[in-house]
Amino acid sequence: MGTVQLSNNSLSSQLSFLLELDKLKSVLRRSYINKGVRRENSAEHSWHVAVSVMLLAEHANEDIDLMRTMKMMLIHDIVEIDAGDTIVYDNSDEAGKIERERKAAERIFGMLPDDQARELHELWIEFETRDTPEAKFAAAIDRIIPLLHNYHSKGKTWIEYGINAGQVRELNSHIRKGSEMLWNYISDIIDDSVMKGYLTNK
Amino acid sequence: MGTVQLSNNSLSSQLSFLLELDKLKSVLRRSYINKGVRRENSAEHSWHVAVSVMLLAEHANEDIDLMRTMKMMLIHDIVEIDAGDTIVYDNSDEAGKIERERKAAERIFGMLPDDQARELHELWIEFETRDTPEAKFAAAIDRIIPLLHNYHSKGKTWIEYGINAGQVRELNSHIRKGSEMLWNYISDIIDDSVMKGYLTNK
Repeated sequence: MGTVQLSNNSLSSQLSFLLELDKLKSVLRRSYINKGVRRENSAEHSWHVAVSVMLLAEHANEDIDLMRTMKMMLIHDIVEIDAGDTIVYDNSDEAGKIERERKAAERIFGMLPDDQARELHELWIEFETRDTPEAKFAAAIDRIIPLLHNYHSKGKTWIEYGINAGQVRELNSHIRKGSEMLWNYISDIIDDSVMKGYLTNK
Repeated sequence: MGTVQLSNNSLSSQLSFLLELDKLKSVLRRSYINKGVRRENSAEHSWHVAVSVMLLAEHANEDIDLMRTMKMMLIHDIVEIDAGDTIVYDNSDEAGKIERERKAAERIFGMLPDDQARELHELWIEFETRDTPEAKFAAAIDRIIPLLHNYHSKGKTWIEYGINAGQVRELNSHIRKGSEMLWNYISDIIDDSVMKGYLTNK
């Protein structure tokens, strides 16, 4: 924290962590914003999905603890500061990715006071494991916004990476576990994308 | 929402609102990220302050309702989609700004189902009014991160706009109402910035 010394150790580690978070604003995702003008970064994506959880919670299959789900969304991509963003349609280095993210979580969350380090680390593992109602819904929301971006940018990322409708259906089918209603809507979006030529039908 | 029709009206307005939010990613603030590489946008700033509230709540002067404060942070800048960002040190058009933001809140929050429109509109007014413990703390956090950005970019915005230490102290003194501890820390940061030549002492 520069040369200004803090007598409060907890505040000092919290501020170092918060400044470290600045780096997530430079991690670029594959999705495009505003109908394709530029690629999205993981910090603004995290904001978007946190607001989405807050507004769409009524459509979750099960009752969820809203605050825990919002916290999960806010922190779910922080490991990318060290591990980078991985395209969801590429599973060629799954083991390497898991190891990189595990180390990243340890280093970055470890900057915080012990109790907060533990809370965030556990929230992140809960999100990745997708076992609780909160994590299932968070994972659904995490996919819905990029799908809408893709649809509204006329399939820009899909075309760029040569993705077909079957891959999109398979990779996103877990949306159903978080919200049947959102999955029905997304299924219509995928069908319409095929009809409009944003996705090849394979 | 394109040509895919939704039978659920509430979901349809929520998704239109969420897509509209994409525009906040293109509203540029005066602060710089990552020691000065580029200007920050209001969406990634909103993420940063929401995480900050979540981690720094223990330093608030009064007990706060954490979820309401996090929601407040997530939505506090949405009006800028229509009204733009205004530099805090410029009060030449205060009346115009208030009117633009009032209209923006009506249009943008008004896209949501009635109950959510009302909730977000009230949260935004609460934030702007700075009367509750939650709003006082949110306003403090909203200033702290940009101040740290400025300090760590060697006063880039301060120098660009010819800001002096007296102005910084005056415009940020309300941090004290949300958190004495954070204000003490920020006071040290301001003194150190003067010593280092990031701020002129006037």
